[in-house]
Amino acid sequence: MVDALSEKSRTAFIFMDFQNYILKNFLPPERAQQVVEKAHAVLEAARQSGCLVIHVMVCFRPGYPEINGRNRMFSWIRESGMAIPESHEIAIDDRMAPRPEEPVVQKRRVGAFGSTDLDMILRAQGIEKIFLSGVATSHVVLTTFSQACDLDYDLAVISDACADGDETAHTFLTETFFSKAGDVHTSQAVVDALKK
Amino acid sequence: MVDALSEKSRTAFIFMDFQNYILKNFLPPERAQQVVEKAHAVLEAARQSGCLVIHVMVCFRPGYPEINGRNRMFSWIRESGMAIPESHEIAIDDRMAPRPEEPVVQKRRVGAFGSTDLDMILRAQGIEKIFLSGVATSHVVLTTFSQACDLDYDLAVISDACADGDETAHTFLTETFFSKAGDVHTSQAVVDALKK
Amino acid sequence: MVDALSEKSRTAFIFMDFQNYILKNFLPPERAQQVVEKAHAVLEAARQSGCLVIHVMVCFRPGYPEINGRNRMFSWIRESGMAIPESHEIAIDDRMAPRPEEPVVQKRRVGAFGSTDLDMILRAQGIEKIFLSGVATSHVVLTTFSQACDLDYDLAVISDACADGDETAHTFLTETFFSKAGDVHTSQAVVDALKK
Amino acid sequence: MVDALSEKSRTAFIFMDFQNYILKNFLPPERAQQVVEKAHAVLEAARQSGCLVIHVMVCFRPGYPEINGRNRMFSWIRESGMAIPESHEIAIDDRMAPRPEEPVVQKRRVGAFGSTDLDMILRAQGIEKIFLSGVATSHVVLTTFSQACDLDYDLAVISDACADGDETAHTFLTETFFSKAGDVHTSQAVVDALKK
Repeated sequence: MVDALSEKSRTAFIFMDFQNYILKNFLPPERAQQVVEKAHAVLEAARQSGCLVIHVMVCFRPGYPEINGRNRMFSWIRESGMAIPESHEIAIDDRMAPRPEEPVVQKRRVGAFGSTDLDMILRAQGIEKIFLSGVATSHVVLTTFSQACDLDYDLAVISDACADGDETAHTFLTETFFSKAGDVHTSQAVVDALKK
Repeated sequence: MVDALSEKSRTAFIFMDFQNYILKNFLPPERAQQVVEKAHAVLEAARQSGCLVIHVMVCFRPGYPEINGRNRMFSWIRESGMAIPESHEIAIDDRMAPRPEEPVVQKRRVGAFGSTDLDMILRAQGIEKIFLSGVATSHVVLTTFSQACDLDYDLAVISDACADGDETAHTFLTETFFSKAGDVHTSQAVVDALKK
Repeated sequence: MVDALSEKSRTAFIFMDFQNYILKNFLPPERAQQVVEKAHAVLEAARQSGCLVIHVMVCFRPGYPEINGRNRMFSWIRESGMAIPESHEIAIDDRMAPRPEEPVVQKRRVGAFGSTDLDMILRAQGIEKIFLSGVATSHVVLTTFSQACDLDYDLAVISDACADGDETAHTFLTETFFSKAGDVHTSQAVVDALKK
Repeated sequence: MVDALSEKSRTAFIFMDFQNYILKNFLPPERAQQVVEKAHAVLEAARQSGCLVIHVMVCFRPGYPEINGRNRMFSWIRESGMAIPESHEIAIDDRMAPRPEEPVVQKRRVGAFGSTDLDMILRAQGIEKIFLSGVATSHVVLTTFSQACDLDYDLAVISDACADGDETAHTFLTETFFSKAGDVHTSQAVVDALKK
């Protein structure tokens, strides 16, 4: 899956939206606990393997200048007060916390590639293959998957390092949808492959 | 839904991938027949209403210079010979054929906004609300919906003017997914609203 | 130039690359002093007028993951050690320092619109007209001007709130080039118009 | 400059806006004649070398739906009647006419990378180095140069295969500006290198 050294230098692991307010508001507590454990195991293995690790988060500047009144979802997020800029809620969960040398990409919408420098970083680093994990499966993971697909990245989704408040959506996406244009692996399979 | 005159001047109807090779290869014949009928009814009503009508198609230049070997889906489309540049197969279905004054946007990947001038046209025309229909629901419609959502368009999907070879995917998307960030209407409801 | 209230709500002032390392390395000290004075006067007037104020800076994450070895200029900047992430050198000059409510856009290349959320913010805020100032005229100002022009913004450059180590380039751009596709004003004229 | 075989497969030559209405309206007749001769010599040599050849043109759909009323330059072009869609005027000059297998990229603004699939094609073909030529130097060449630079392409401009109605602008750009971030070569030097 990711064996040779040359392949590792062209591979990135992208961890998306593992932020306190998202885990708390969009997942049942047990599900949040579980997905962070799985994602954390992959994060540690990716770090040890030397692959590029990138963190993505959805956050805003004071006053939310990025939010367009026509965007229903983000207008609602702004009004809800759940995503206060620079609050503890907006921070990435402690277990998934970025190390200083790991790029953190701040996004303002669902997909990680829109209006960010994620594609620029991946190109600058010669990355061709990316492994996606995040919360929620039918939001950041789905949209980022579609974007990455159209940008011609070789794609894999780590199924149990993704989660969604809507289990039907999660199951449909990880069991049927993603495999049409990419690979789908369990976190255990990815960790095993990285340790080879 | 689309009433006032001022709203009509800010509304566009986008018909996507109603091309012979897509209808033939990705839908059962009856389903193809049916979705074209529904989409055609909307197309006619949109034309009469004076709303902007845009057609989107997925096609390639001779030699397929746009296709990246890393992109599995499009490599397969190229190899299959189903999408020969400038062939009859690549053309839009006769019933959905663009009129000379209706912009046709040629895309090379799944989503209609990537590497095209669709957003440029919509901005130039002052469009804020867009109605999407197309084949397949889980391909062009889903990816374009996600892109348009992150670009802050006010969005509606016309459920039965979309179709997918995978009925489960179609049902999940039109009954659960799209309504989280946009409206979902039947073609009949849209036609009725346009006639007001 | 910027009179009516409705116009002010659609106007933004963008101050670009007024950072310590740029003022120090790319301009003679007197020129740096002078351009900051002019830009500061505009900044204060724009704040008082209620127009949107945006700051743009060019900076990098630890380890410079954004820099591509093929990019000569940015490889050189990285090697020079002049743009150490999070250093005092990378900070915006004290006199031009952003207020908490003013968006700061971090870019990684020359132009302010590439791989950033600047266009997203401007669209979200309904901005149609933008006033540009920055250092250097033939770098960030020129490239951002070209990008903004192709994005259909109504454009003005504030000539003496821009500066360049190459005076010939500055003169050519502010006296001949920018006026072909936008307006060129002095800082005094802009300040006067804002006070009306 | 472009020697080894491996380098040739990663090199593209891009010929921009050599269209009848641009040569006729923006250059004196002698200058137009001369620049087409130089560009044609490069075009022939590039074809023989096996490097990728791409043509770029600026054109519009019937009714100019791409043109935004806020864009002064393109509003003027539309009003002038010089760029009628699908007219002889809009066509590429006969001597520079694309061969069927050479991609033609249609753009709607100044720069060749904005809202087009040029970057997609270059990435799909593994291109890293690009040679630019076109009319006018201070329009399509300058903006495309800036865009390509920020996209990390290894860049060269072919000085006498570019021309501008404003000779001062042409001289400034080809003698001073482009060399700060790329190479500048004469057409003769490029033809000689390609024949090696």
